[in-house]
Amino acid sequence: MYLVDGLQYANWSEKIFRQMREGGVDAVHVTIAYHETFRETVLNIEQWNRWFEQFPDLIFQGRTADDIARAKQSGRTAIFFGFQNPSPIEDDIGLVEVLHTLGARFMQLSYNNQSLLATGCYESEDPGITRMGRQVIKEMNRVGMVVDMSHSADRSTIEAAEMSERPIAITHANPHRWHPALRNKRDEVIRAVVENGGMMGFSLYPHHLRGKSDCSLEDFCRMVADIASEFGTSNFGIGSDLCQDHPDSVVTWMRTGRWTKDVDFGEGSAEQPGFPEMPNWFQDNRHFGQIAEGLARVGFDEAEVAGLMGDNWYRFFESSFSARKV
Amino acid sequence: MYLVDGLQYANWSEKIFRQMREGGVDAVHVTIAYHETFRETVLNIEQWNRWFEQFPDLIFQGRTADDIARAKQSGRTAIFFGFQNPSPIEDDIGLVEVLHTLGARFMQLSYNNQSLLATGCYESEDPGITRMGRQVIKEMNRVGMVVDMSHSADRSTIEAAEMSERPIAITHANPHRWHPALRNKRDEVIRAVVENGGMMGFSLYPHHLRGKSDCSLEDFCRMVADIASEFGTSNFGIGSDLCQDHPDSVVTWMRTGRWTKDVDFGEGSAEQPGFPEMPNWFQDNRHFGQIAEGLARVGFDEAEVAGLMGDNWYRFFESSFSARKV
Repeated sequence: MYLVDGLQYANWSEKIFRQMREGGVDAVHVTIAYHETFRETVLNIEQWNRWFEQFPDLIFQGRTADDIARAKQSGRTAIFFGFQNPSPIEDDIGLVEVLHTLGARFMQLSYNNQSLLATGCYESEDPGITRMGRQVIKEMNRVGMVVDMSHSADRSTIEAAEMSERPIAITHANPHRWHPALRNKRDEVIRAVVENGGMMGFSLYPHHLRGKSDCSLEDFCRMVADIASEFGTSNFGIGSDLCQDHPDSVVTWMRTGRWTKDVDFGEGSAEQPGFPEMPNWFQDNRHFGQIAEGLARVGFDEAEVAGLMGDNWYRFFESSFSARKV
Repeated sequence: MYLVDGLQYANWSEKIFRQMREGGVDAVHVTIAYHETFRETVLNIEQWNRWFEQFPDLIFQGRTADDIARAKQSGRTAIFFGFQNPSPIEDDIGLVEVLHTLGARFMQLSYNNQSLLATGCYESEDPGITRMGRQVIKEMNRVGMVVDMSHSADRSTIEAAEMSERPIAITHANPHRWHPALRNKRDEVIRAVVENGGMMGFSLYPHHLRGKSDCSLEDFCRMVADIASEFGTSNFGIGSDLCQDHPDSVVTWMRTGRWTKDVDFGEGSAEQPGFPEMPNWFQDNRHFGQIAEGLARVGFDEAEVAGLMGDNWYRFFESSFSARKV
């Protein structure tokens, strides 16, 4: 069994890399851009290059699914880059290939707001995939960068799932039917993604959980079982959305970037503007084992648990990251 | 025998790529930046990505020496990127690794003028390698990017050759003793480079030739023989400096970039401000065979000719482009 996390955005440090090793995490898709321009994204890549140089016994850069196996064999964690917004490609489709060469493997077409490519889930209107969006999806398909619609609106997501010639992903979200948050996904959205071969990672971020920080592991696992009874297990995994050790100024950056002068609380509120407390059964990378146990307790067999904890992501990575044969 | 050209800067087109194939050129180090910033260099890489996509039967991007063999086997030309100035890394050492990942394999530490790293050959004073220059040489050594001192001043070049832990290159220049141009290299400079395992590519750019455009093939080959009698042949190759099909506005860009408001004629003059006419025995990529024949006529044996025409560059590429084992 491989242990793969479909999304994290932590204040990374040696401490967290060591926790990844303690938790036996073989691979993590890490967010390296929220609102960053191309140049700012490259600065974030430079920071990762320094970490790869400083901690070669703990982490290395992942580029293909084989790197997950290599990570397991060598007792390290493979780090795959992704963006939660298309801001790193600015208005230049040529940057898709450039950033893929630098290791980017996932890109959200929008983050809450309208982007040049698609609509975000906080907009009141969703006109669907834009002209540039169609071109960029085609280019992402060509080079092997996954279309991620975690923060996108419904119509845009369904159109992307149908338009993309390769399966897409919702790396981190939960079902709207379980917890009707704006970021959680309605059945028809989940169906469009998984029926086209795509993946969905279940989120552990409190705003996506029923009962938020107080959500029990059992309730979370029963939600997974409920979805599995309808959609099977093979197109699902974990996308923890772990935002560890960040000061609250970072959640403000995530929510407002440079696009507004007003305060926008996103999924939070004026009373609770900061990062929410993670549930007690998932505080950091050392706690994935508890989720695996919880999934077994609600009735998943060994192969299903292995699939949900990482093998399904492994298979998806395998078919997603290489250039298409011409 | 491999046919490798140590430097070209042409107005590339399908026509030129086809001429590379007609001439049996297995690999070319192409200049993709003179005065470009990082972002502008990335735009040039994007243009190359389009060419690689458009002409996959003629060219592909070279990253390691193995790609030269792969090019020969598949009847294509491997294209290796390089810069004639450190402007693409701006003031940010982290961009060395980023640009290496994008394929950069050569970088000149200066282009005629003082840079942040070293002194150019047109400055009146040469204080040698700067503080940042020492750090960047170390980083280039680490990731596998060749220090190229073609347009640098003597002291800076000799210091770089001695300071660098991996062999350096003068990709395109000729001996000062044969033709005392400002860009040609004195014996002590050549010695410092080749005695530390480095390479020098003989230039076919008229300003570097005795008699300029009228230089005969025989005179050029006798110059090579003269140098070989003192330094051997194994550290030498060709670096044609072919600047084909460019309008004269491009040589103005090469010479003055954005660093001056005055006109600077560089190696030209007010009377001849444009690109000089190439010698009649080397007009484009189809004519390398004539040089090989000329070298044989002045007495080089088959292995020496093969070395000078590309095998020496092959061997140098082999040991230069990979990250150092820690």
